[in-house]
Amino acid sequence: MIYLDNSATTHPHPEVLNSFQKVADQYYANPSSVHSFGSEAERLLDRSRKQAAQILNVAPQEVIFTSGGTEGNNMAVKGIALQHQSRGKHLITTQIEHPSVMEAFRALETLGFDVTYINVDRNGKVNPDDIKNAIRPDTILVSVMSVNNEVGTIQPVRQIGQFLRSYPKVFFHVDHVQGLGKVDLSIKEWGIDLCTLSGHKIHGLKGTGALIKQPHVTLFPLLHGGSQESEVRAGTENLPGTVAFVKALRLLNEDLEQKVAHLAEMRQVLWKGLEERASYMINSPEDGAPHILNFSIPKYKPEVVIHALGEEGIFISTKSACSSKQPDVSAVLKACHLDYERTTSALRVSLSTLNEMDEIHTFLRKLDQTVENLKATMG
Amino acid sequence: MIYLDNSATTHPHPEVLNSFQKVADQYYANPSSVHSFGSEAERLLDRSRKQAAQILNVAPQEVIFTSGGTEGNNMAVKGIALQHQSRGKHLITTQIEHPSVMEAFRALETLGFDVTYINVDRNGKVNPDDIKNAIRPDTILVSVMSVNNEVGTIQPVRQIGQFLRSYPKVFFHVDHVQGLGKVDLSIKEWGIDLCTLSGHKIHGLKGTGALIKQPHVTLFPLLHGGSQESEVRAGTENLPGTVAFVKALRLLNEDLEQKVAHLAEMRQVLWKGLEERASYMINSPEDGAPHILNFSIPKYKPEVVIHALGEEGIFISTKSACSSKQPDVSAVLKACHLDYERTTSALRVSLSTLNEMDEIHTFLRKLDQTVENLKATMG
Ligand SMILES: Cc1ncc(COP(=O)(O)O)c(C=O)c1O
Ligand SMILES: Cc1ncc(COP(=O)(O)O)c(C=O)c1O
Repeated sequence: MIYLDNSATTHPHPEVLNSFQKVADQYYANPSSVHSFGSEAERLLDRSRKQAAQILNVAPQEVIFTSGGTEGNNMAVKGIALQHQSRGKHLITTQIEHPSVMEAFRALETLGFDVTYINVDRNGKVNPDDIKNAIRPDTILVSVMSVNNEVGTIQPVRQIGQFLRSYPKVFFHVDHVQGLGKVDLSIKEWGIDLCTLSGHKIHGLKGTGALIKQPHVTLFPLLHGGSQESEVRAGTENLPGTVAFVKALRLLNEDLEQKVAHLAEMRQVLWKGLEERASYMINSPEDGAPHILNFSIPKYKPEVVIHALGEEGIFISTKSACSSKQPDVSAVLKACHLDYERTTSALRVSLSTLNEMDEIHTFLRKLDQTVENLKATMG
Repeated sequence: MIYLDNSATTHPHPEVLNSFQKVADQYYANPSSVHSFGSEAERLLDRSRKQAAQILNVAPQEVIFTSGGTEGNNMAVKGIALQHQSRGKHLITTQIEHPSVMEAFRALETLGFDVTYINVDRNGKVNPDDIKNAIRPDTILVSVMSVNNEVGTIQPVRQIGQFLRSYPKVFFHVDHVQGLGKVDLSIKEWGIDLCTLSGHKIHGLKGTGALIKQPHVTLFPLLHGGSQESEVRAGTENLPGTVAFVKALRLLNEDLEQKVAHLAEMRQVLWKGLEERASYMINSPEDGAPHILNFSIPKYKPEVVIHALGEEGIFISTKSACSSKQPDVSAVLKACHLDYERTTSALRVSLSTLNEMDEIHTFLRKLDQTVENLKATMG
């Protein structure tokens, strides 16, 4: 099997699964229980929080463990909106956010909020000036992803965070689900108030993740209840999941530079290979994230290509998994000003550090064969 | 170790852990991915949903998998409130709900909703007539737990559901987290519109659960995003967690009657044992759930008793884990009209089918010794 759909989800690392197993079986007490078995679980939770904080260069109390990226994004976007609406009901985001951000904003519109969706250029990039110009006295939130999940565009998060320092009343949220371990990001130095992370995109487990929240930020919780997670995320702590998430973070952090270089190298070979072939059109920006390459084969239905490749044990995707069962046009590619032919024939290859260069070559070869075969059947 | 804190959380069943492990490792694709590896994951998800539905006697599309009881409760309570507020902003619940219901209602009050918190009697029981009398033309929701987590009171859910049939505009939500596998409940026959379940209370995993939602019920989602879970709960599906949850449900369902009888027998012995001793005062109703027994040892701080028992490898709790780090008075016992001495000295024993009668006898003996020892030190 050649698995090239790592932006949809990744294979959990065996050590991550081991940690999960061990904690679930041996430290199963409720960390909120007052007995010593509960305290043991609580200490393990504290330790995990500290380890995560150290890796992310934030304070332990700034780490809120969640059930994943969708929860983190909804918690940040709705949490700011509902908590600070008395100060203003205007929100700013971009046209190519992940559905878990986009649909949260659309839902807030039905509750009376006013949302500006900033345009992106051909490369999917947002212009920081456009955001600056959209800010009004009643703006309370700017939300921009670090890396787009369909095309891999890296947004100018640093610059946006920088000028937002002059707007202390505007909170800044970054969906870093696709960026984690792939591109640079400094929560503290770049002025990020809220940052969403997800476990299953980094060889961790589904249903795990974190929202990083700076101490001055108050949120209306999505999940009210007990006083877990500094009272912003109630619910019996998923300790095994949390330990597994932090394990994945730690493994990710080992030799990170080498890993990113390996990804970039594979992408470069893939890029060249696709570029050489006249019938393939690359949709990703050249300076995009090292793990995502989006391209179109006009006139070929992506589902058909994907299924044919699947028969060869090669797995790639079209659009993002989250919206892949929706109608044919990619809203992200459309927002990038691509034409209908390209927005309806896009394929996404997404890499993990576990992939090897060989697989890229095999993929290119099999893709050619597949397209040849399809051409023959279509002809 | 004698673990008697099963209402806080339970030890995951080995088969549950095995299922989790296997699915996380072998079926890691995103169920929303269009390739065949994704379809395999999707089929497994569908199968799990069907199995859960069969056990719960509902239709598959009525099962929404969640990250646990707190999410299910918040999703039901806030989801109804936000979705149906144009029809009315009055909500009804009881004074002894779990914090994940109670605090959700309190939060809705800050958003302009009006909540009636119905009184309970000495046994923690709500009178259906009180609920009926509280209904107004603008009432949109009644939320009542099936079993109280601190004292084990079984609420008259069936009767409430029955008379609510005459109020088709009022939705009925039941927090069944403590009741599942312990007391009878029929979602369809009893007119329950929304029912919350949690995995880790039934030897499943933390971070898993379900909200059962009848087809006519529309909710404002907590988690917007992709179209997973019939568009009411976005986010990459936690397939390993879901399979594990359904495994726990299936195991629970095997010889269920015998299991409940075993619990009731242990509780009966415990009850008699405590009753015989003049210094212990039982707070639970005699006809309560078979797994919870709450009692007070006036003048003894529960934390001190719990720690002393912990030294003997016996784990019990005070109040619920979710609120056990809050100040001393149990709000639930106070609502049950118990006096200060009792509300501040309460202990909770909560049983699982894995407990054995021997453990109950040992517990009673060790409790006597512990209290003797403490008396000596205090004296
Ligand atoms: C950019 C981005 N944000 C958010 C998410 C949602 O994360 P999760 O799948 O953990 O809910 C995803 C992936 O699905 C993503 O790619
Ligand atoms: C009655 C009741 N409802 C809800 C919950 C919350 O469930 P979870 O711990 O899965 O969030 C609990 C347990 O904590 C409970 O006892």
